[in-house]
Amino acid sequence: MSTVVPERAVQTLMNPASVAVIGASEDQHKYGGRLLKMLLSHGYRGHIMAINPVRETLLGVSAYPHIDVTPVVPDVAVMAIPQPKVREAIEACAARGVTAAIVITARFSDGGAEGAVLERDIVSIARSANMRLVGPNCLGIISPAHRVVLCPSTALVAEGLPVGRVGFVSQSGALMGTIFDKAKEIGLAFSHAISVGNQADLELCDFVEYLIGDPATAVICTYIEGLKDPRRFAELAARAREAGKPWLAVSSGRTQAGAQAAFSHTASVAGDRAVFEAVCREEHVTLLDSPLTMIALATSLADHPATQVSRIAVFSPSGGEAAIAADEIESAGLRMAVFSDATRTKLADYYPPSQAANPVDTGGRTVGDGPDVVGESARIVADDPDTDALLFAITTTPTLHRVASDVADALRRDPASPTPRKPILYVFETGRLADTARRGLLERGRYFLNNLREAVDVLAAWHSRGSYLPPGRPVRPADCPLTAAGCAAHLPGKGTYGEGATREWLGRYGVRTNEERLARDEDEAVAIAGELGYPVVLKVASAGIVHKSDVGGVKVDLYSDAMVRDAYRRIVTNVREHAPAAVIDGLSVQTQFKGRLEMIVGARCDAAFGPIVVFGAGGVLVDILAARAIARAPADPDHVIALLRRLPLWPLFEGYRGVRLDLAGVVDTVVRVSWLAADLAARQPAGLDFELDVNPLMVADDTCCAVDARLRVAARSD
Amino acid sequence: MSTVVPERAVQTLMNPASVAVIGASEDQHKYGGRLLKMLLSHGYRGHIMAINPVRETLLGVSAYPHIDVTPVVPDVAVMAIPQPKVREAIEACAARGVTAAIVITARFSDGGAEGAVLERDIVSIARSANMRLVGPNCLGIISPAHRVVLCPSTALVAEGLPVGRVGFVSQSGALMGTIFDKAKEIGLAFSHAISVGNQADLELCDFVEYLIGDPATAVICTYIEGLKDPRRFAELAARAREAGKPWLAVSSGRTQAGAQAAFSHTASVAGDRAVFEAVCREEHVTLLDSPLTMIALATSLADHPATQVSRIAVFSPSGGEAAIAADEIESAGLRMAVFSDATRTKLADYYPPSQAANPVDTGGRTVGDGPDVVGESARIVADDPDTDALLFAITTTPTLHRVASDVADALRRDPASPTPRKPILYVFETGRLADTARRGLLERGRYFLNNLREAVDVLAAWHSRGSYLPPGRPVRPADCPLTAAGCAAHLPGKGTYGEGATREWLGRYGVRTNEERLARDEDEAVAIAGELGYPVVLKVASAGIVHKSDVGGVKVDLYSDAMVRDAYRRIVTNVREHAPAAVIDGLSVQTQFKGRLEMIVGARCDAAFGPIVVFGAGGVLVDILAARAIARAPADPDHVIALLRRLPLWPLFEGYRGVRLDLAGVVDTVVRVSWLAADLAARQPAGLDFELDVNPLMVADDTCCAVDARLRVAARSD
Repeated sequence: MSTVVPERAVQTLMNPASVAVIGASEDQHKYGGRLLKMLLSHGYRGHIMAINPVRETLLGVSAYPHIDVTPVVPDVAVMAIPQPKVREAIEACAARGVTAAIVITARFSDGGAEGAVLERDIVSIARSANMRLVGPNCLGIISPAHRVVLCPSTALVAEGLPVGRVGFVSQSGALMGTIFDKAKEIGLAFSHAISVGNQADLELCDFVEYLIGDPATAVICTYIEGLKDPRRFAELAARAREAGKPWLAVSSGRTQAGAQAAFSHTASVAGDRAVFEAVCREEHVTLLDSPLTMIALATSLADHPATQVSRIAVFSPSGGEAAIAADEIESAGLRMAVFSDATRTKLADYYPPSQAANPVDTGGRTVGDGPDVVGESARIVADDPDTDALLFAITTTPTLHRVASDVADALRRDPASPTPRKPILYVFETGRLADTARRGLLERGRYFLNNLREAVDVLAAWHSRGSYLPPGRPVRPADCPLTAAGCAAHLPGKGTYGEGATREWLGRYGVRTNEERLARDEDEAVAIAGELGYPVVLKVASAGIVHKSDVGGVKVDLYSDAMVRDAYRRIVTNVREHAPAAVIDGLSVQTQFKGRLEMIVGARCDAAFGPIVVFGAGGVLVDILAARAIARAPADPDHVIALLRRLPLWPLFEGYRGVRLDLAGVVDTVVRVSWLAADLAARQPAGLDFELDVNPLMVADDTCCAVDARLRVAARSD
Repeated sequence: MSTVVPERAVQTLMNPASVAVIGASEDQHKYGGRLLKMLLSHGYRGHIMAINPVRETLLGVSAYPHIDVTPVVPDVAVMAIPQPKVREAIEACAARGVTAAIVITARFSDGGAEGAVLERDIVSIARSANMRLVGPNCLGIISPAHRVVLCPSTALVAEGLPVGRVGFVSQSGALMGTIFDKAKEIGLAFSHAISVGNQADLELCDFVEYLIGDPATAVICTYIEGLKDPRRFAELAARAREAGKPWLAVSSGRTQAGAQAAFSHTASVAGDRAVFEAVCREEHVTLLDSPLTMIALATSLADHPATQVSRIAVFSPSGGEAAIAADEIESAGLRMAVFSDATRTKLADYYPPSQAANPVDTGGRTVGDGPDVVGESARIVADDPDTDALLFAITTTPTLHRVASDVADALRRDPASPTPRKPILYVFETGRLADTARRGLLERGRYFLNNLREAVDVLAAWHSRGSYLPPGRPVRPADCPLTAAGCAAHLPGKGTYGEGATREWLGRYGVRTNEERLARDEDEAVAIAGELGYPVVLKVASAGIVHKSDVGGVKVDLYSDAMVRDAYRRIVTNVREHAPAAVIDGLSVQTQFKGRLEMIVGARCDAAFGPIVVFGAGGVLVDILAARAIARAPADPDHVIALLRRLPLWPLFEGYRGVRLDLAGVVDTVVRVSWLAADLAARQPAGLDFELDVNPLMVADDTCCAVDARLRVAARSD
């Protein structure tokens, strides 16, 4: 629709040559007053025009009664004016040829149906003039890298706008301001921070795309309440990954309550959370729970982009704190580094032999407070080959004022750079007693945290990045007979398919099923059972019956002709009683495949991200071993193995108590099902919606077998 | 050994009439200098005597060359002197008749074998003079309630010693000092704080006992690295529970690494962690991960001792923060309160209809910044009947400077008391921008946190208190034939018992087992199978074979005479091959009991806490559904149900997918096994050590049955 490509508008927004502040004033209790003041006080180098109906200057800046009469056309207009006045202002900006407008004002789609109509109106006014919008219901843009502050947050009242290498795009404005304030205090800084609000026009991904290409940004952080375009998100994530630029995200809506809250906030719909998380894992977007730990991890990653973290060395002046830290680290799935003999020998110059180990209780040293003992300890530990990262948990100690600076100096990568040789997190568990120590770190360009748990959360999220896989390259199994394009005739059409038909589709994709034949009467059932070999299973075959067990339509453990006859009669009786309307086609006689584990393998077409395959424990355990794995279809076999590895049932595949299940078979089944899913989703002309359930996939020690399945295919609704 | 009962010595330590500071100086860089200064500057009202070989006064206090020549016998002596001088000082104190000495000095049992010898020496010197010791390797005692500071921590350099109602006993000194510093900054305060160090003489429980009886202490907090006397701990916990005084604990050693770190720190052995946690649950000791959240919860409990917390109302000026908070709350097992219609109607005066709900985005209000909108919102929410507690997550907002005070004032229980009507936690996500707001809360005697996760951790720990059960009152089942005393002849003696003998012992305690008979040959096996009815199981019976499956000694699913014969021969062949030395007594023919679930029920004599019963999922799932429940023996049936309820397998007992297992039978089995365990542990003269495994207990829909078991009984080693 628009002819202004987002890239150009975003470039302009992030570094405008001129800015008009609509509704500017001098009153610092008002948004319009702060907008103007912040732009001035943080050193904006472009042309500022204040729009105010009655004043000639404001805070020394020339003011104009209307945007029509500014001396030049402003690149960007920013407005925090009452909601009823926004439409007129947007019309004026559009008429004047402004490239992009930022609407701080709230009460649009976030405030109900009437606001939503107004929101659509201003977007269409803007589009018709090739103007782009940020917001509404946002807090604008802060760009320390460009010294551009188009943001009225009170967090910017304080002096100074430290420049960092972390770019941050947030769907919440207040959160951006809050994090900005806290970040400055603990030594975290940004290249750019953008609040996108309701995303009526420009959205989170537009700014992420900018940050991927931005040389001032080393790591991208995002706060997400709902994605406007999930597939674009996935594509950009792949691009960021390929560019080697880490992307981190906090996304509310992990829980039902959070999703509901996010919806009331910016009218975002969370979608299927588990699929979103699966896509993030596949595309290496690191999810965290807290914005502050996200910014902290991003800052560490900017210094150590290639480092993988799992083995942690802890040191602390308090043995108690060190023990608590060790607990937190191991509880978070990290592990305490095991120092080499060389490290222990070096530490033994300063510590008693039993304490020359991880964690290092620097309070327990045997030598005095030489100027450098703790720094030297840190240096020794940083050289340890088993140590990926250091955690310095700082408690009260007589040398508190300088102990952190000593460590920072000891660990410098080289004299010219404050960057440490190995990642280190500084945590102050103390209160203001340590403020001198905190200042020492800030002066050295190092950040710190004030809470052990935060530091461990940072390390745990960092650790999770280590298990990301190389990009998947799914290969169609050679004996999968179909390809998506032009073979509609070979794929199931719309409809609901029972066990028999679904087995056929699965069979065409090479999924192994147990042998079965349809019996029309008892005698035939006995004859088939004899051919298949005992034990067998009997199941009712009826198009009208979906849940066969629920109507008494399944009998297992049939070891003899007599048992088959008895079971046949019972099934017919049960079904006539519980499903009198169903037409019984006969009874399916099946070889009884005895697995050690029942699994479930399903596939469907996710509304946001397309075809996916889902797999995990089945049977009675289905919700108890609740974790389920999700991969996009078609799936890469290595990814499937990696996902199985995270499930509680994994030990059964690895060899456990004499059980070692058929991993290759399960992976093969999941991959084949994923190709069927991908082909269905791609089926011309528009793809199909579908739900496929292989339940159960029986898994034994050296084989596995789908013993029941169902498929439902429908038209795609998007 | 000692004739000074701990209670008297502890009373004296906590409020001494006179104190000698051994090694006192004026140098504030030295421990002895700070010890003297802190005592003076925090308003100690007793008699201070400085011990210094060369000075007549120190900081205006009379000094004496030796403790022999002080004008009165000091109640308490405190020393932070070089380790080689400690023995002489203890001898002098003992000779002088000092009631108790505090040894700050480290490098005793914490520093190796030589230090451990010295530690034993000073304890025996003290005991022979009826003197008690605190430490060594501690940071002494801080009692704001009594204005007694016997602690050299730099955390006390700052002015002020706020008095709270939380008593804290810590095995780590630096941790105590650190928490003290942080606590003061965020509005938390103590009645007393005691650091017990190596616990060479007086130990954590001595001071907990004091706090249980102390009227100035409403809630007890402890940092534990290892218990000197676990049974005393359990007894005191029961006493605190009966006294209605909450007891909270952080205990390092949750993980292997933490336990190792705690051991290096104060030479404490963690023992079996799971048993410790089970005892804490039974006796209502609340375990937390972080000392700060422990003190925060304790402070809230002091205001709201009877409140149970699970339904939380959140409000925040940031919708994003509110959504994140909702996620954290639900992830922590709490739940977001569902406001009543009345609450929503009242909120709708201030918020758009879609936002008049939980969480409340106070930034989204439709009215201006009236002085009282947020306070009024809090008041409305506090009146909501579904809301147990409030969480105010504070972000940047134009009214930041006063918004927290507004809320605190609005929620006052009555005009004279700052205590709120309902529990509320204030969290500042901002940095220093909110310092005015923080001061407002401190002036009102309210504490705050600076991290959302901490607040949620406090609420989650509070919530966990709600699931504590009333004290157990185990009743011996009427048909349990034995009682412990005087019936040694009826209990198994020392030895290892195979399946057959263990079944007998279980049978005497009324545990249901499946029918079985011993067959000496194939024909007999077929005959027995015919009598028991098919299907049957065959198991090798041999005293020499413990793991029957491992030698191919078990065959299941035998449905016919032919299958029994075949299985008989295969078992004999397998056993001869895999265990050629074993004497085969015959084969046990058993009815095959088909359960839906295999459980394991075990019992043993825990070295720390005595007889316990352990139960959970068995079979292949034993480590996958890893959670196991532990109860002390004999066990109360209601406790057993409550413990089962926490296990992942619980849905199977509650009714799940057509499965509803025999809960009453499982509980009955666990209780009966627990009585056998209790009787074994109590067996005269000294009790027995033992390990009993019922594995598996097969559980079906309406019954359950022990189908295999083993027992090992030994002499008690303690």
